[in-house]
Amino acid sequence: MREIPEGRRSNAMGEIRQDVTTGEWVVIAPERGKRPHEWRRDSRPSEFSPSIDATCPFCPGNEGLLPDILVETQANNSFGWGTRVVPNKFPAFSSGASQNDRTRGIYIACSSDGQHEVIVETPDHNADLAIMSDADVTRVISTYRERFATLLSQSRFKHVVLFRNHGSAAGASLSHPHSQLIALGVGSPRHRLMDKWAHDHFQSTGLCIFCEMLEFERKEISRVVSENSEFIAIVPFAAISPFELWLVPKGHQPSFSELSPKEEVALAEILKQLLKAYRTLLGDPPYSFVIESGLVDNLAAPHRHWRLRMVPTLVKRGGFELGTNLPINPSAPEDDAAALRGCLHANEKGVQ
Amino acid sequence: MREIPEGRRSNAMGEIRQDVTTGEWVVIAPERGKRPHEWRRDSRPSEFSPSIDATCPFCPGNEGLLPDILVETQANNSFGWGTRVVPNKFPAFSSGASQNDRTRGIYIACSSDGQHEVIVETPDHNADLAIMSDADVTRVISTYRERFATLLSQSRFKHVVLFRNHGSAAGASLSHPHSQLIALGVGSPRHRLMDKWAHDHFQSTGLCIFCEMLEFERKEISRVVSENSEFIAIVPFAAISPFELWLVPKGHQPSFSELSPKEEVALAEILKQLLKAYRTLLGDPPYSFVIESGLVDNLAAPHRHWRLRMVPTLVKRGGFELGTNLPINPSAPEDDAAALRGCLHANEKGVQ
Repeated sequence: MREIPEGRRSNAMGEIRQDVTTGEWVVIAPERGKRPHEWRRDSRPSEFSPSIDATCPFCPGNEGLLPDILVETQANNSFGWGTRVVPNKFPAFSSGASQNDRTRGIYIACSSDGQHEVIVETPDHNADLAIMSDADVTRVISTYRERFATLLSQSRFKHVVLFRNHGSAAGASLSHPHSQLIALGVGSPRHRLMDKWAHDHFQSTGLCIFCEMLEFERKEISRVVSENSEFIAIVPFAAISPFELWLVPKGHQPSFSELSPKEEVALAEILKQLLKAYRTLLGDPPYSFVIESGLVDNLAAPHRHWRLRMVPTLVKRGGFELGTNLPINPSAPEDDAAALRGCLHANEKGVQ
Repeated sequence: MREIPEGRRSNAMGEIRQDVTTGEWVVIAPERGKRPHEWRRDSRPSEFSPSIDATCPFCPGNEGLLPDILVETQANNSFGWGTRVVPNKFPAFSSGASQNDRTRGIYIACSSDGQHEVIVETPDHNADLAIMSDADVTRVISTYRERFATLLSQSRFKHVVLFRNHGSAAGASLSHPHSQLIALGVGSPRHRLMDKWAHDHFQSTGLCIFCEMLEFERKEISRVVSENSEFIAIVPFAAISPFELWLVPKGHQPSFSELSPKEEVALAEILKQLLKAYRTLLGDPPYSFVIESGLVDNLAAPHRHWRLRMVPTLVKRGGFELGTNLPINPSAPEDDAAALRGCLHANEKGVQ
């Protein structure tokens, strides 16, 4: 990672910022904010010994608790497997949802036809992406890419959402490391918004808004946290939450399904590095990340550029956000980026 | 309240529903849902004796901890006051935020000029709207209306958001009963969305979408929870969460600032009734509510119709919602409405 000088602190006053990739707005209110140590949670120990939980459906030996195993990758461990793809037992979307007329008087609805799967990331119940070996994290990323591409290729799906919830506050109901995939028969509201926004920008400027943003951020420096040969990590200008991070491919790449083996290794590297920084800085915070990638029928679109978007679950949303769709971020993105950079620097000089 | 027959259960399958008042979408996924008793939380005792907390800035005797008292209403209790309006000590928006150019290279931002106030609802630290006297709840509503109208009348504000967060999971940092008002120099994204949606509907049909919706709901019955002379309470067709409620004036009324004294009494009555039902059914759940009302320059618009929107904090949002803006509601609105009706019926036959 190249050396990024400290400096250009936010000198932050409250203001309302617009996300240049979606047009959405956010309130930056640092005077409500806390310092990083105040966001810290009770930390789990940073190293675990492999273990099995007798009641966990994702643990080796409990395969009888799973509805099915769709895919399994091999690994050089005592169980012989590394990752597994299994159906979600309580799907938010399921195949065969009826396609009949959904008009209800003045209302409309549409079918929630889809597929909801779980990617079990390791046989080890107590493992965590932040502390797994580089090879194991790369295997998880490869499974992500493979399954993402497989579901995208099925013509009944318009859109695949790949996400990970870590910790119960972020919505994870099982602690065994896992991610989820939901394939939808319709494009989601956020996907349509992003697609339209980026498309309009491309129409008027001929440029990919993501490529343009990366060029600007690399000049500005203040929000860049880390980069390697393939990826750059920034705290976005209009972060909705303290320590939000975007991991973006440096070259123009519309879909996550196009990830090369070399890019898989690089993504695993930078993701693990940032998750370790979260742990160092914030304890073991709950967080969610999601791969935001193009719609099936827009895979080759010159205006799309995928990213991994990661948000720690640190702030509570209440009536103000309900009534305004305007998230309040009590932390200045420039300050958070500086704190994360400092942390990466210390981690590099440390144990490794 | 008129008798509402049981029946027309949802027979609910998963589907994606559209909110007819905003155009927003939500996933209804009852197969992921729990029965009401599973949403129950540890309940606080349902009656409290008046009390004072020595460290609470909203309690009588601790006025020195407040930056100021802007308004105070009188009440026949040992403290002589009923409600107070005070400045928020940690404002998300504050007056005098600078108005200079906010362009930052490719980004834009705007000033977060505004005003952030707290309405202390009672001197009693352990009181709660659900169990306060009818007169005390009406006084709170009157203070809401008075302060809402006062801030709306100031020309530098475009938009006033009045909301209440109950319980720490809903974002309340102090337990003393209070609500909040934020006056903004700009319209919020949700306000602009609602205004455009309702305006477009009015342009094409000549009808207020809220009036039309109420007419339909009163015929359908299945989502109506309660009504009195002035207000109707429904679980919305596209509820984003279990037990979401909308309290809507039955007559066409664009702005909350137009509330008459008679309507204040009626709103206090139905609100208290529903908060009691939450307690009976769900323990003492955290919740938020917000008054959604027209923009200043649209007060008299024939397409606007205000509502009180209330959402208990029962589900966690994670990576899926982050990546889609598509909330998953694991409960069928028709089932929740039936459960709330049953509860109101039991409460009516009970203690009162």
